[in-house]
Amino acid sequence: MAEIKLTQTVNRGGCAAKLPAGELAAFLAKLRPYRPVELEVGSETLDDACLWDTGDGRYLVQTLDFFTPIVDSPRDFGAIAAANAVSDVYAMGGKPSLALTILAFPAQKLPLELVEPLMEGALEVLNSGRIALAGGHSIDDDTLKLGFAVTGFVEKDRAWKNSGARAGDALILTKPLGTGTITSTIKNGESNPQWVEAAIRSMKALNDITGLPLESVRAATDVTGFGLAGHAMQMARASAVNFLIDTRALPALPGALECLRQEHLNRAHATNARYVERAVSYSASVASDPALKWLTVDPQTSGGLLLCVPARQAPAALRAIRERFTEAVLIGEVRPATGSPGMCVEFV
Amino acid sequence: MAEIKLTQTVNRGGCAAKLPAGELAAFLAKLRPYRPVELEVGSETLDDACLWDTGDGRYLVQTLDFFTPIVDSPRDFGAIAAANAVSDVYAMGGKPSLALTILAFPAQKLPLELVEPLMEGALEVLNSGRIALAGGHSIDDDTLKLGFAVTGFVEKDRAWKNSGARAGDALILTKPLGTGTITSTIKNGESNPQWVEAAIRSMKALNDITGLPLESVRAATDVTGFGLAGHAMQMARASAVNFLIDTRALPALPGALECLRQEHLNRAHATNARYVERAVSYSASVASDPALKWLTVDPQTSGGLLLCVPARQAPAALRAIRERFTEAVLIGEVRPATGSPGMCVEFV
Repeated sequence: MAEIKLTQTVNRGGCAAKLPAGELAAFLAKLRPYRPVELEVGSETLDDACLWDTGDGRYLVQTLDFFTPIVDSPRDFGAIAAANAVSDVYAMGGKPSLALTILAFPAQKLPLELVEPLMEGALEVLNSGRIALAGGHSIDDDTLKLGFAVTGFVEKDRAWKNSGARAGDALILTKPLGTGTITSTIKNGESNPQWVEAAIRSMKALNDITGLPLESVRAATDVTGFGLAGHAMQMARASAVNFLIDTRALPALPGALECLRQEHLNRAHATNARYVERAVSYSASVASDPALKWLTVDPQTSGGLLLCVPARQAPAALRAIRERFTEAVLIGEVRPATGSPGMCVEFV
Repeated sequence: MAEIKLTQTVNRGGCAAKLPAGELAAFLAKLRPYRPVELEVGSETLDDACLWDTGDGRYLVQTLDFFTPIVDSPRDFGAIAAANAVSDVYAMGGKPSLALTILAFPAQKLPLELVEPLMEGALEVLNSGRIALAGGHSIDDDTLKLGFAVTGFVEKDRAWKNSGARAGDALILTKPLGTGTITSTIKNGESNPQWVEAAIRSMKALNDITGLPLESVRAATDVTGFGLAGHAMQMARASAVNFLIDTRALPALPGALECLRQEHLNRAHATNARYVERAVSYSASVASDPALKWLTVDPQTSGGLLLCVPARQAPAALRAIRERFTEAVLIGEVRPATGSPGMCVEFV
């Protein structure tokens, strides 16, 4: 059982990648879902989770996420899947309360005993965040997929929507970028153990930002599959503002830029680049550095939070955040929506 | 696009079946999840959903379910997936409030446009139940899978746990059995259109039991993948009682017994029979009728509710239920736990 490398059980490039976001959105836009007043945030603004007014001064925060193995150890994969899924609740300013497992397991290819380390890894993370594992659903499937539906709560006046960014805000990112390219090296069998270890440590880290003195935060999102550029675009659009991001300030995992220079890419690098092409611009110096450009669309798993804080409060907020997220940095600023129609994120 | 038959896109028998419930339970039993006081019902009693005390006199009801196509039309499949997923909330006595989509779509095999009728079918059902579709997660995968994470609420004194059955209760089933064998005939290309139509109508029907005068209900569950025998066993065990079920009273979909007589079975018929073999007994007359025996373990999709009501109130409850579920019937009674250890469901 020590011989099983989970990433090698995911054979096809097409497996469990994201669906084309643009096309999907076009179909979903035609739907007319029931829209009760309690639903404060639905899927319209591509926010991290929905918000439902519980009528007692709080919103219920509901989200779900699942994906195929990106690391070889079942325990690590379980931990990462859990940290990644609950992150959306933190990104809304909430405290995750309970999680339900989403498990697709290839019982024909893998021994069922693997479920134990998978779930132990997940529980390590959930327990540390005082999040109850309360059930779930499992099926026999062709490829392993693990994830969680996560429920949390947030006081109404503390909820962070992705539509709350305002011109004059500073942008803070709490984790370094690069998990996409580094996990690609694992799949390609060309990984550097130290780089992988650092990436796994980062992906397992909970985005638990609760309890910090962050009343000044105006908007937040977590950086995941669409990369920094994709999630910045969604947030800038939802807020009707422009983001100016300083690529020299972007934090990268050890080895991430080297891996990107060697073109360790997966399908999402290209689809993310297409997803943002009409909304994101690059200065000449960034455009001339392919690795840096790829870093901006590198698909993150369990990536950091991207927070908007009024510039004056940003130093204090950053100090508070660094107590728990030592690699958090200021990466840019929010500007009024100007310039070409649709363009909303500028990397310089 | 009219040519695509969804059931023919699910090629392998092993796809998206249930995992062996017994073995899985053994691994999960070793885990030590964080257990806050707010979690009133977790996964221990194999209940339909978890209950979380929201502190305002209500429980939050959270559940999720997803599966591969069992019918050919995308619109029907979407509707059935939605009705099936929200059913667990009704089975706890709750009102579903919001749903998040779980979608695995084979973009290499099927046109992405199919997402539209799939989700339209789902919305038809969700909208009719005044349930908000509030987001979700989709991936590119080998086989189509659709489901929903569903959140609801229930007043604390109205919550129906599967552990509440008491000796002297009557057992009421709200829908006829047989969706497993009839959907097998579709997959085998040997279906009778009228039988399929009746099964689809039944599976699309919401188990919306809210608002009926059913204060007398003591326990409930919905009959799904483990069949009537499996879910009766889980409920009898959770309640520490025995169930006596009269097979002559069991309602069956048109054609269901014929299909079972012709051995239109899927893998779950056999695994369900194994799942219950140490807990379920059959009288000689039932044991001599293989089709009837298979009906007791026929895996249901979007099956009916199994309700426990004190015998004296059963006639009034049944009348109330029949206002909405015309095929609801009394199928048996609850007795004290006696007899062989472990045996808890008797079919006569």
